[in-house]
Amino acid sequence: MNNNSRFHENPYLFSFMPMFYMVWADAILTPSEILKIRELVDNQLWVTEEDRAFLLGKLDPKTPPSPDELKSWLVEIRRAAGSLSADMKKSLVDIGIELARLNARNQDDKTLDEARAPLTDIEEALGIISHEAAFHLRSQDRVAQTQSTRSSSSFEIDQMTSILEGEESEVIKRVKTIISDPEFIYFPKQDVDEYREQVFTWCKYLADQGFGSMAYPKAYGGGDSIRDYFAIMETLSYHDLSLVIKFGVQFGLWGMSVYFLGTEKHHKAYLKRIGALELPGCFAMTETGHGSNVKGIETTATYDHESASFVINTPHEAAGKEYIGNAAVHGKMATVFAKLIIGDTDYGVNAFVVPLRDDHGHELPGVRIADCGHKMGLNGVDNGRIWFDQVRIPKDNMLDRFASVDSSGQFTSPIASDNRRFFTMLGTLVGGRIGIPRSGLSALKSGLTIAIRYGDQRRQFGPENGAEVPILNYRTHQRRLMPLLAESYALHFALKHLTQRFLDRTDDDMQEIEAMAAGLKAYATWATTRGLQECREACGGKGYLSENRLDRLKNDTDVYTTFEGDNTVLMQLVAKSRLSEFKKEFADINLFGIINYVASQAKTSLTELNPIITRNTDPEHLLDLDFHKSAFEYRERDILTSAARRIKKHLDNGMDSFDAFNQTQYHMVNVGFAYIERIVLTQFQDALKKVSDPQCKSALQKACQLYALSRMEKNKGWYLEHGYMEGAKTKAIRRVINQLCLEMREDAVALVDAFGIPESCLAAPIAMRS
Amino acid sequence: MNNNSRFHENPYLFSFMPMFYMVWADAILTPSEILKIRELVDNQLWVTEEDRAFLLGKLDPKTPPSPDELKSWLVEIRRAAGSLSADMKKSLVDIGIELARLNARNQDDKTLDEARAPLTDIEEALGIISHEAAFHLRSQDRVAQTQSTRSSSSFEIDQMTSILEGEESEVIKRVKTIISDPEFIYFPKQDVDEYREQVFTWCKYLADQGFGSMAYPKAYGGGDSIRDYFAIMETLSYHDLSLVIKFGVQFGLWGMSVYFLGTEKHHKAYLKRIGALELPGCFAMTETGHGSNVKGIETTATYDHESASFVINTPHEAAGKEYIGNAAVHGKMATVFAKLIIGDTDYGVNAFVVPLRDDHGHELPGVRIADCGHKMGLNGVDNGRIWFDQVRIPKDNMLDRFASVDSSGQFTSPIASDNRRFFTMLGTLVGGRIGIPRSGLSALKSGLTIAIRYGDQRRQFGPENGAEVPILNYRTHQRRLMPLLAESYALHFALKHLTQRFLDRTDDDMQEIEAMAAGLKAYATWATTRGLQECREACGGKGYLSENRLDRLKNDTDVYTTFEGDNTVLMQLVAKSRLSEFKKEFADINLFGIINYVASQAKTSLTELNPIITRNTDPEHLLDLDFHKSAFEYRERDILTSAARRIKKHLDNGMDSFDAFNQTQYHMVNVGFAYIERIVLTQFQDALKKVSDPQCKSALQKACQLYALSRMEKNKGWYLEHGYMEGAKTKAIRRVINQLCLEMREDAVALVDAFGIPESCLAAPIAMRS
Repeated sequence: MNNNSRFHENPYLFSFMPMFYMVWADAILTPSEILKIRELVDNQLWVTEEDRAFLLGKLDPKTPPSPDELKSWLVEIRRAAGSLSADMKKSLVDIGIELARLNARNQDDKTLDEARAPLTDIEEALGIISHEAAFHLRSQDRVAQTQSTRSSSSFEIDQMTSILEGEESEVIKRVKTIISDPEFIYFPKQDVDEYREQVFTWCKYLADQGFGSMAYPKAYGGGDSIRDYFAIMETLSYHDLSLVIKFGVQFGLWGMSVYFLGTEKHHKAYLKRIGALELPGCFAMTETGHGSNVKGIETTATYDHESASFVINTPHEAAGKEYIGNAAVHGKMATVFAKLIIGDTDYGVNAFVVPLRDDHGHELPGVRIADCGHKMGLNGVDNGRIWFDQVRIPKDNMLDRFASVDSSGQFTSPIASDNRRFFTMLGTLVGGRIGIPRSGLSALKSGLTIAIRYGDQRRQFGPENGAEVPILNYRTHQRRLMPLLAESYALHFALKHLTQRFLDRTDDDMQEIEAMAAGLKAYATWATTRGLQECREACGGKGYLSENRLDRLKNDTDVYTTFEGDNTVLMQLVAKSRLSEFKKEFADINLFGIINYVASQAKTSLTELNPIITRNTDPEHLLDLDFHKSAFEYRERDILTSAARRIKKHLDNGMDSFDAFNQTQYHMVNVGFAYIERIVLTQFQDALKKVSDPQCKSALQKACQLYALSRMEKNKGWYLEHGYMEGAKTKAIRRVINQLCLEMREDAVALVDAFGIPESCLAAPIAMRS
Repeated sequence: MNNNSRFHENPYLFSFMPMFYMVWADAILTPSEILKIRELVDNQLWVTEEDRAFLLGKLDPKTPPSPDELKSWLVEIRRAAGSLSADMKKSLVDIGIELARLNARNQDDKTLDEARAPLTDIEEALGIISHEAAFHLRSQDRVAQTQSTRSSSSFEIDQMTSILEGEESEVIKRVKTIISDPEFIYFPKQDVDEYREQVFTWCKYLADQGFGSMAYPKAYGGGDSIRDYFAIMETLSYHDLSLVIKFGVQFGLWGMSVYFLGTEKHHKAYLKRIGALELPGCFAMTETGHGSNVKGIETTATYDHESASFVINTPHEAAGKEYIGNAAVHGKMATVFAKLIIGDTDYGVNAFVVPLRDDHGHELPGVRIADCGHKMGLNGVDNGRIWFDQVRIPKDNMLDRFASVDSSGQFTSPIASDNRRFFTMLGTLVGGRIGIPRSGLSALKSGLTIAIRYGDQRRQFGPENGAEVPILNYRTHQRRLMPLLAESYALHFALKHLTQRFLDRTDDDMQEIEAMAAGLKAYATWATTRGLQECREACGGKGYLSENRLDRLKNDTDVYTTFEGDNTVLMQLVAKSRLSEFKKEFADINLFGIINYVASQAKTSLTELNPIITRNTDPEHLLDLDFHKSAFEYRERDILTSAARRIKKHLDNGMDSFDAFNQTQYHMVNVGFAYIERIVLTQFQDALKKVSDPQCKSALQKACQLYALSRMEKNKGWYLEHGYMEGAKTKAIRRVINQLCLEMREDAVALVDAFGIPESCLAAPIAMRS
């Protein structure tokens, strides 16, 4: 039985076939829409009564075509669609009329021309859907533009790697060689005890290579290079992050506290053994009751002049040391922070070396240690809680670089204020706030490498009759990953800059470096958390499987936003520091004068904010690096000024300063963000200037532009509120970002390959080269 | 030796003491600032040469005061500050002059008055910092406003709980009783095999209670209540989420696929045993090569008429079934989705019941199963991969509600199109997209309960000489958690509405319900992921410990954004559906007509956008529910119109429809968001209208306002771009949000307690009531 016989009897009816096919084949049309079409057919006087009955029957839900009949329609339609020239294949009506023409060659065109208008009415009732349907009815092999994007590389990957690594490339290479060794194959089990031992063994291998003592003086077996120490942390972070943190606790926190807070006697006694991992130790600062507010810790170190010793004591359960790395299993000693008490006087927080375990690993008398147990991540690190019950240590165990007890039992210090001494001590430990964001950034780079390689290989969906498309060709996928890729490059250069500033530090710029470290730590680790989440989701269910490592990367780094200073607290520190820096910049006028000055300046410089600029949507302007810099600087300055003004207003109204800062806290966090974003942008721009290779420079410039514009888009509400841009401009920025994402997509695989992460470290099956 | 003897010799000098104290005590002052003060002192002619030398000596970094000397200054200063009346304690100068006066009662005031001006110069050079310092020098016990906020409850908690639970309260109570049973104590170990067995045992307990078969007809041992089934899923989600997913796979996916896609013969054969967990099974749809694009799956079911059987086959490795819950260990059967082949014809995706294992748990011939291994979360669920090698099943095993093979071996279906049949089949499974966001929301509620209770109890920092403050009193902490709390209430009512629409569904509104389910699933699960991340960070290091459960909540729900439809893909489905709904609303004009109509309407309704409204910053207006509704609706309509316009433009230019949708993909996702946000808001507002208890209503209204304004703030860039609001208004919204957060903070603990999560399920030590 030929289902299409009626059509062949009156070939004009073929002109309806594409529409009918669509009605029955498309999942989206609703009953009410079918009714609509029936009504239109019903009103057509140019078809016979009989034909009309036939046509209406084809629209009756009670008499649907059979699956085979529908399939046969498609065969007919495709034949007609195939015979139309490319530019004509635009509508169902075109296809329908061609179909009628093919089946009735002897018909005059007039009848078909008459049919065109009412058919078009029907098609228009179907609207946009019919436009899409017409594409579906095209030839079998549709090739859409979306399919054509391919990975390529506009630059030499090795060249880019060497720009990223700079003068650290040699030590990076050494570390990569070690972590690619078969001994460093990932620990595959969930057993925490075994995992901790594995991490300890790995740490020992690294110590054997001299990596652990890299930052210590040569006299104590060290490498005398803090720069290389940071590069080691960063590169190790391509591997297991428990290893990185264990390494950082032992050689960074424990070793550096002895080095920076202690004096020669301590260096001689401990440093060599620490660097060789012969003396595993802890950094015992945080207490259960006091995390961010370290100044409030309650452990005491009471001086006993008679026996020239200190008694370390935990006054109550919640004053126990909390979350101390290396404590649960391996630590033999610890740098313990405690309030020094001499007689009746509290001299504030000082640091002491306190033995924890004997050579057999047993806790020493008065020392009680508990395991913190399972954590979200970093389970290869043995975090523990420590309580001290009147533990006596010799006087020499006080780390006495910034304060000591003299031979007469008097407290003495070159820094009079307990408060300032405390912050000076902490300041020497700012290195942790450099190492952590660099480690987090490496984890983000791993995540991006996995997600981008997968996105380039994974195909899903495509034109109805065409090949499936790599998911990285989809605009939303590009929008998810390309700005993150640009941001990871931006952060790389910003953290390099921070490291250099730290290495070159003087007393005078220490405050600025501390603020920058605090802010970049917060900003970069938040970027890591947000970025890895995006990478996980971009890999779908595959990203959820542990074998693809995104879970470990995410879970291990999740605490980075919290430790070495809670990010929200750090951003407020940054803001407070900016308020005082702000003052320094205008040395000759006082703060309140400055506020008036800046306010008036802002008004006059509204000429800078003239409509020609605030409305400028010229792509050349939008891509201009100076425009980006100005926009970031304007925002930074304006937010800072208004924060200062608000606080002043509250204080003038007699508000307690603590309340005034709390009232403006939300604003203060933005002060921190605006400052750090300006730093990151300008450092990226400065780094760009130093690149000589034109291909690399061009690719990096695109990343720099995308970073700048993505941030501006994120902050567009602010820019619009403040009249710095008008709506037309922010909309134009969105378009430019879309375009940059599309362009960067081609280089994306090359840009992640330039990170140079060892394949054995990436390990994810979905990231393996095809 | 009295360090202060010189001061006592010339008591005028005491007026400098507060400033000196600050210079040495404050950690923020820089060397350059000290120089500045020295210069000012140097220029003071009103002090003797000798005094000047003494004063300058006190500013010399080479001769700092001793710690004890500094302490003695503070004692003096506090005495003077204490004698000043409250309103005078404003500056260091005031304190200094009072100090001088106290120490030299016989001095005439004139000298001190002369001192005031130059001292004030110095203080102003110190700027804002000195203002803060003056507060620090106040009495020992500062009480700041920030300290005074306390938790209370403006409503009856039980009353609120019963509003939330509504008619489901009975089944919720039953489930809570079961999961609070000691048998349901959390599985404490990391061992995956044991964990899977524990979860299976728990599932069995639930089946024994009749929970598993709740949605099935009474004839097959069921409870005949889909509503209660969803309430069970939601309530179970306060407990272990592996249990929830295992439960959902067995009774929802496996059982409901048999129920909805099969016919009586299947119901009779399987349903009772499924509901009793005597027949554990799987839902085998996804393949390694095809996840989101299910239509592209490659497994085949070839009909053999001679033996009246189908042969199920996996054509190549990547066509294996992927990530199938219940497959790795427990599954005995599966609903397998495969392309039906009869002769040479492919009839598209259909569903078949295929046995996987024998009674001893051994894989049947031709069936190969692999374990997916460890995952980021949900490790109590045994996900596996399945490959079929020419597995023969009887003809009756085809789930034949929507398609079948007749006795002559012909394919037959009431739905002609393979495509439409496929979507109709999937449509019956939309329940999964209701259960998952409801489960995710429960997890978010658990997270919020933990974080808010902790924030209420945890104290950190405070005024320099005052008690520490609960961290929930800090504005940034409120800003992190209060909008999330409001959002969780909003989502609760929206998901209740969705459930009701699903229960009341007809063929005609099925498309709308599917779009709403897809969109709410995406929106709510993203809110869960984002919200739990915030909760984790808000609990700091404690949030990272597994004992506090935020890690499990986060990791278990992380995949919710990916399974039951990838969220980004779902949002595009929603947008496509909205484009066709959009058309339906204007049944009499075609789409392109509509675009012109809406565009012109938008222009004329710019009167609605008159400056009085776009600039209205009156709090009463900003808190007005109708204003919120209008703003959400305006955004929804405008984004949808512009998306339609863009796509049309691309198609008119001859772009392939696949490309046109890809080009506008980013915009399409926003269409989905704007639609869902409008649904969530209006459902919350509608629910509010039905609340009779005035206290609960008032608390809920605040949450509704905070939800609305938080979303508007998030979208403020869009509102400003489109001239719907001016900067003054968006800034005013920020202030109103801050105020709402502050007000909601007092009710916050009560609002999470109203979720009524069993304490044994919360389990986190940091969330226990103090």
